[in-house]
Amino acid sequence: MLRLFYTPHTSALATHIVLEEVGATYEATRIDFGKNEQSQPDYLAINPRGRVPALATRHGVLTETPALLVYVAQLFPESRLVPLDDAYLFAELQAFNSFICSTLHVAHSHRMRGYRWADEPESIEAMKRKVPKSVGDGFEQIELYMMRGPWVFGERYTVSDAYLFTVAQWMEADGVDPSRFPKVLDHRNRMLQRGAVQSALQQELAV
Amino acid sequence: MLRLFYTPHTSALATHIVLEEVGATYEATRIDFGKNEQSQPDYLAINPRGRVPALATRHGVLTETPALLVYVAQLFPESRLVPLDDAYLFAELQAFNSFICSTLHVAHSHRMRGYRWADEPESIEAMKRKVPKSVGDGFEQIELYMMRGPWVFGERYTVSDAYLFTVAQWMEADGVDPSRFPKVLDHRNRMLQRGAVQSALQQELAV
Repeated sequence: MLRLFYTPHTSALATHIVLEEVGATYEATRIDFGKNEQSQPDYLAINPRGRVPALATRHGVLTETPALLVYVAQLFPESRLVPLDDAYLFAELQAFNSFICSTLHVAHSHRMRGYRWADEPESIEAMKRKVPKSVGDGFEQIELYMMRGPWVFGERYTVSDAYLFTVAQWMEADGVDPSRFPKVLDHRNRMLQRGAVQSALQQELAV
Repeated sequence: MLRLFYTPHTSALATHIVLEEVGATYEATRIDFGKNEQSQPDYLAINPRGRVPALATRHGVLTETPALLVYVAQLFPESRLVPLDDAYLFAELQAFNSFICSTLHVAHSHRMRGYRWADEPESIEAMKRKVPKSVGDGFEQIELYMMRGPWVFGERYTVSDAYLFTVAQWMEADGVDPSRFPKVLDHRNRMLQRGAVQSALQQELAV
């Protein structure tokens, strides 16, 4: 059985949604950053990097959202959530996911994890100040060049929709005005109507 | 025909090596950052983000190294450079590539592109100072937890080897002592003996 280790309000939500979309049998285990559970021996034995998400499978533990999204979809090919039979479209999907993880998510991380890239408190504050701009620039790229609509890749719903929805949840907290990005905002609203999204959110946000 | 847009000393080298490994017919076009060619209308028409690599195909232009590596390998399945028939191993490969692009390459980028994440010169300097630590931490993860040897995924040579070699080229300039990472260093030395690597390097570094 698959076991997802997640923390609310992190990128783990994307994999959580996809597990729901494909109808997988899985267990979801919350790692509480407030209690520093990600740095305890129990969790480091699962993921030595102490981050979420991690997905325990019968073969071993996998990490990194772009990998998890494609893996879960590949386990359930009838879901058609990744176009593995179309190399070009698959590459476009991979490029989109890579842009989210290495540009948009990285920009977002400078708000709360600036200590990864500088030590001085004033520099960490300087990074925070630029987050509305850098995260906003990322969403602008998506709005202008990437989003086909109604879904990221047109009529076909894919794992990239779950990933976009996940990071679009962070816009307000990052100081980005969602009304600048009507396509992304409309996408976020339509995602909220999907049963899989509601189910994943309920599990993560229920106390 | 495939056309790769590259700049020397960037992550474009990884795709360049893989194009050589598979024996693709392709053209390689240098984008000179010194002349700011990446921001000229000619190149922005190819890649609106003004970055390298970009790969022009008969279907359109693709970006993002993790996507390009898998795409080129998928066009030449007999090369067996990605394990598309083994979902778990493919996920491990994707996770490795994702770690390089979103952690290791991002750490490296704070040396010369800190302006992406802060405006103040002293904060940009503070980011530079932390690069030896953050990039070193990334290679430590690879050395301790990821590298199976002799190649990244054991006996099977994959696109991840080209990607690791590419970023391992930057260690000295990033202030990281390669002797801390004997497996990565040995890998780099063995990669230099491959014809495909020599050919890609000769094209990129010849003046």
